[in-house]
Amino acid sequence: MSDLSAVKALVFDVFGTVVDWRTSLICDFTWWGQTRGIKADWTALVDGWRGVYVASMDEVRKHPERGYVILDVLHRRSLEKLVEQQAIKGLTDADLDYLTKGWHRLQPWPDSIAGLTRLKKKFIISPLSNGNVGLLTNMAKFAGLPWDLVMSAELFEHYKPDPETYLGAARLLGLAPGEVMMVAAHNKDLRAAQSNGLKTAFVARPTEYGPLQKEDFEATGNWDIVARDFAGIADRLGC
Amino acid sequence: MSDLSAVKALVFDVFGTVVDWRTSLICDFTWWGQTRGIKADWTALVDGWRGVYVASMDEVRKHPERGYVILDVLHRRSLEKLVEQQAIKGLTDADLDYLTKGWHRLQPWPDSIAGLTRLKKKFIISPLSNGNVGLLTNMAKFAGLPWDLVMSAELFEHYKPDPETYLGAARLLGLAPGEVMMVAAHNKDLRAAQSNGLKTAFVARPTEYGPLQKEDFEATGNWDIVARDFAGIADRLGC
Repeated sequence: MSDLSAVKALVFDVFGTVVDWRTSLICDFTWWGQTRGIKADWTALVDGWRGVYVASMDEVRKHPERGYVILDVLHRRSLEKLVEQQAIKGLTDADLDYLTKGWHRLQPWPDSIAGLTRLKKKFIISPLSNGNVGLLTNMAKFAGLPWDLVMSAELFEHYKPDPETYLGAARLLGLAPGEVMMVAAHNKDLRAAQSNGLKTAFVARPTEYGPLQKEDFEATGNWDIVARDFAGIADRLGC
Repeated sequence: MSDLSAVKALVFDVFGTVVDWRTSLICDFTWWGQTRGIKADWTALVDGWRGVYVASMDEVRKHPERGYVILDVLHRRSLEKLVEQQAIKGLTDADLDYLTKGWHRLQPWPDSIAGLTRLKKKFIISPLSNGNVGLLTNMAKFAGLPWDLVMSAELFEHYKPDPETYLGAARLLGLAPGEVMMVAAHNKDLRAAQSNGLKTAFVARPTEYGPLQKEDFEATGNWDIVARDFAGIADRLGC
């Protein structure tokens, strides 16, 4: 087992690791669509939206000369295309804003808050997410996530898994990379964190993508902690 | 009275406004000096240290080509000079680090935590301080400050009262400047915030500088709120 006694801060992937974005958005939009009288296959919209997530960040990465673009703006751009493709009719500008801000209104997994509350007693806890600061702050207020601070890809003008994000988080905290542990439900995120010197904790979220889940059912790397949920991480860290 | 219904976030000056840096440092260093067997006039050290604070940030402002320097580093540089000037003997490198990190171990004013806790129910609350992110995060853990997020001059690579700090805070939150209220015990900070479009709240901290206090006994500008303490701000904002 790894020596984790140097760890002082835990940084968390958020979409999928802390919150259940898929169920949250489908429920929110289905209820809202009924009250607004908008007909759509909201599940298809949400899955399609997340389906273009990585590509939308790749565009930013490929065109540094255009400057960094925050996730709220990427979400809005992708949404406009999907609404067109899926022929969803009757959406006003305010409606598109409401849907885009759906990513600010995500519900935590059932173990998230209790686990974060335990971990916060011993460690600095922060998101390290591709969501922008405003999105993550609003989500924390909405969902009751007890972060000590909010770290976002936006602060480093690089999206994960770029090294600037993991190293930037350690730098902002005044810590060495090995004093920071990345917590994620995604092996790819942990691989990048580990290669930049961070400690790693995997938590399984096998229903994140619903029936579309294809990977991350289990740990596929040599992570410092592998747990079923946040309580398991707190147990392992003696919280 | 101003219409404050648009305000969604309160950002706080920290040194002097939220925490009593002078009493905290003098008590901490006096106790520590006794246990370490170091003789010094700790009150003179603390007052001298704060006395060069503004000049140390001005140096950063005057030399952008040298890059931004975080407050922990400025504090350490100033300390080394003062230790020499005040002929304090026997300090190791670890001792200088302990003293510098004294700024991470500051106690809140008696009304700070209760006031912040009330304000947090209705508003996003964050520091907007010249302290670096690591300093502010450690202080929040030490003192129990219930911030929603931690915003620092470090994120904008500009010290207050540069406009980049006030406008940067609003931008990170995805808010218009008029949706953000600056809370400070310093009229100068509020003047800069107001000139950049933020709302303003003054709280009196007439003992901040002890017997050396020369200004900020009262509000000298047309601030949106003037209060005796954080409870007064919460009252005015209906929290």
